[in-house]
Amino acid sequence: MLTYSLDNIGSESLYLYLYRCIKNDIQDGTLSSGEQLPSKRSFARHLGISNITVENTYALLQSEGYIYSIPKTGFFVSDLSMLPEKPNSNMHGRFLSNNMPVPPGVQEKKFFADFANNYAAPESFPFSVWAKLMRETISIKQNELVQNPPCGGVMELRLAICEHLRQFRGMEIFPEQVIVGAGTEYLYNLLVNLLGREKIYAVETPGYRKISKIYQINGACCKFIDMDSCGIRIDKLLSLKADIAHISPSHHYPSGIVMPASRRYELLSWAAENKNRYIIEDDYDSEFRFAAKPMPTLQSIDQTEKVIYINTFTKSLASTIRISYMVLPRNLLRRFFSKFSFFSGTVSNFEQYTLAKFIHDGYFEKHINRMRNYYRSIRDRLLNEIAASSLAAHSTITEETAGLHFILELDTRLPDKILVQKAAENGIHISCLSEYYHTTLGAPKHTIVMNYSGISKDKIPEAIKRLADAVGYK
Amino acid sequence: MLTYSLDNIGSESLYLYLYRCIKNDIQDGTLSSGEQLPSKRSFARHLGISNITVENTYALLQSEGYIYSIPKTGFFVSDLSMLPEKPNSNMHGRFLSNNMPVPPGVQEKKFFADFANNYAAPESFPFSVWAKLMRETISIKQNELVQNPPCGGVMELRLAICEHLRQFRGMEIFPEQVIVGAGTEYLYNLLVNLLGREKIYAVETPGYRKISKIYQINGACCKFIDMDSCGIRIDKLLSLKADIAHISPSHHYPSGIVMPASRRYELLSWAAENKNRYIIEDDYDSEFRFAAKPMPTLQSIDQTEKVIYINTFTKSLASTIRISYMVLPRNLLRRFFSKFSFFSGTVSNFEQYTLAKFIHDGYFEKHINRMRNYYRSIRDRLLNEIAASSLAAHSTITEETAGLHFILELDTRLPDKILVQKAAENGIHISCLSEYYHTTLGAPKHTIVMNYSGISKDKIPEAIKRLADAVGYK
Repeated sequence: MLTYSLDNIGSESLYLYLYRCIKNDIQDGTLSSGEQLPSKRSFARHLGISNITVENTYALLQSEGYIYSIPKTGFFVSDLSMLPEKPNSNMHGRFLSNNMPVPPGVQEKKFFADFANNYAAPESFPFSVWAKLMRETISIKQNELVQNPPCGGVMELRLAICEHLRQFRGMEIFPEQVIVGAGTEYLYNLLVNLLGREKIYAVETPGYRKISKIYQINGACCKFIDMDSCGIRIDKLLSLKADIAHISPSHHYPSGIVMPASRRYELLSWAAENKNRYIIEDDYDSEFRFAAKPMPTLQSIDQTEKVIYINTFTKSLASTIRISYMVLPRNLLRRFFSKFSFFSGTVSNFEQYTLAKFIHDGYFEKHINRMRNYYRSIRDRLLNEIAASSLAAHSTITEETAGLHFILELDTRLPDKILVQKAAENGIHISCLSEYYHTTLGAPKHTIVMNYSGISKDKIPEAIKRLADAVGYK
Repeated sequence: MLTYSLDNIGSESLYLYLYRCIKNDIQDGTLSSGEQLPSKRSFARHLGISNITVENTYALLQSEGYIYSIPKTGFFVSDLSMLPEKPNSNMHGRFLSNNMPVPPGVQEKKFFADFANNYAAPESFPFSVWAKLMRETISIKQNELVQNPPCGGVMELRLAICEHLRQFRGMEIFPEQVIVGAGTEYLYNLLVNLLGREKIYAVETPGYRKISKIYQINGACCKFIDMDSCGIRIDKLLSLKADIAHISPSHHYPSGIVMPASRRYELLSWAAENKNRYIIEDDYDSEFRFAAKPMPTLQSIDQTEKVIYINTFTKSLASTIRISYMVLPRNLLRRFFSKFSFFSGTVSNFEQYTLAKFIHDGYFEKHINRMRNYYRSIRDRLLNEIAASSLAAHSTITEETAGLHFILELDTRLPDKILVQKAAENGIHISCLSEYYHTTLGAPKHTIVMNYSGISKDKIPEAIKRLADAVGYK
């Protein structure tokens, strides 16, 4: 049976040591693909350690895809060539496969380039500045750090956000209106609890499916509202009796539509007609506008206290910063705090103070500017490569001036499903615009949403060549 | 008009500089209590700065209680002798008072000692260790830090929690069962979304009112279940048709009851009778057991996968650590991940990795041991002082061996309300057991819940003297 010496593990914990031993053996081929591992119980007995140690080791190996299980049979070494480059830390799918005889490698194909998701570039986060500010926070804020974070967030951060919104979005608000929370999903939940789950929540189609799913999970009724070239359709809001409209007027994903002023005022007037109506303005990527200054927010032109503005630092800064915020109209503040003031905040004081200083000292602005240039260079490189490729003669590019994606319409007869599949066979992950529609009826075909924030520059030429090959252009 | 030179503010932001100027003038008496401040607009014009700067300055001063507003009249300097020692960063009450002519100082009385709330002792958090682990995290985890935190939490932390629960609570679980979230309130919300808001949630009476409020806010029906000396009553669970029982069997707050084994098995058998039934085991302060080892958790004796275990680091570590977790039974995992796996985690990777290392390297255990000793010494001092005081002859103390509070039953005819009021007049904040009951019918009278975790040792003799005086014992 598989044997490892446990004499020299030093201070490392047993299960991690064992994990590393087995991982090494898998990586260097000592344990080969498909080989069965000893059962947990017999392995534990053999090594003279507890069952739970082996369980934890196997669980970790399995979560990272190195091994997989077949129920009532045992654990087996995965085919490493099927694994994603970096073991994915999101392991739900795999754990569920614990009960299903599907080796994890099969579910998660390794792509050469992924245009279907928007990742923040890992190397972009200013770790050294962040570390410096954290040190400062820990040395001067010890008293504040051991207090419960207040429900709305710590004052310094709310003031910094006010200052930022005033400077970059022309919004004149009080810090008390800013509510800080651990991610937009949490804020949506607060909003459903605040506005009422019996209300009808309208979301855009096409759009992020995630938004409607969150409303539904929170027990609210969600309706899909068609868009025209100006954004969400008011007539549909009326006919579907919507109360709350959740929209992205500054830059709609994935269509890229920027809502013109006329539709904005129409929408505000729709909201003003009924006391139950509110607009949730999702301004998630307004920081990355390349062409001109972004349009003023709906919030800033609203005189009737009907707009709830929402944004996040997770997209503009880094995924590890789980800090989002919303700006409530003043007339909702009393209702909000009388309902939720007993809630503790969901973001640690520590990160709130650090982020406040990051914004206040100008690092956030610098970071945004740097990232805007970086993303622009990625986009330019991508557009150049497409122009020089066989795709050029058979495609149209639109909506390339804002956000972190553009739209690539292909002249092809291939159905979208086949398109995605053929690209995948060539190692390219793409998603089609049609996937963002609530129903595929009337959805545009052969149109790819090209998300580029996570693509590394040196891969672009090869990625475009593979995409062109996949579509069959010569 | 009030004038400050803004020439030498250096790199500080204007509103913070102005805030400091005014605060100084209030603290040294240059601006005296009740004095009206200039209106925002005229002050801004006078100083040649923008309205929003003055607004932010006033908002910050108001949030910290230095000034208060009377609608349509203006801003006034507070009576500083009415302010709490440390300006409270939780400013909702005050902002709401923006629309109400109530000076903030009046609402938040300054107490000499607060036995009504359980605060973690600020000086207790091991900041230097935490800072060291953060530095390590930032230097070795850069790749992981820019990934989205997975819905259940990062693997290292879940493994560390498993290890901790195995060692200290005898629980043998898989890391996949551990779901990490930003505070227990967020986890309750996930549970309502997971188990269904149409279910009937049973909470204990007496008990924390917060728990039922959170269920209700999330749209679930909540029923209050009476307790007997063994804990929650099964007959009441049945007659009120409860589906989910939310309980604290290891140490009930505030009664202090530890559920005996017989009731535990009865409860498990109640849950096993119906597929909709689950038990939420809230183990919030099991770390602070003085007498003996805490009883095994319900989770660890449950063979039927009916117990959801929940705990938090906010209480055992520090308020700034917004990290709680629950342990799902395996049969709920598939439902959980198929519903929520698209959610991002609510705790930053950064703090998750830091906490994982804190636990894994043994610092958490050390901290718990140190705090247990510290709290024990506070309790002993308190019990000694009571024994030596005039309270001794007129009171009975119970439930003093676990948790961070004990029960002090007084021989008095004063109604609870008067008792609380008289104590407050003497600078002592207390709460009575009756306040934790859903109805006061049958609730014990003249019984104080003495929370002591936030009391500093040197204040104890004086605090007890004042309490005895308040009750009128000689």
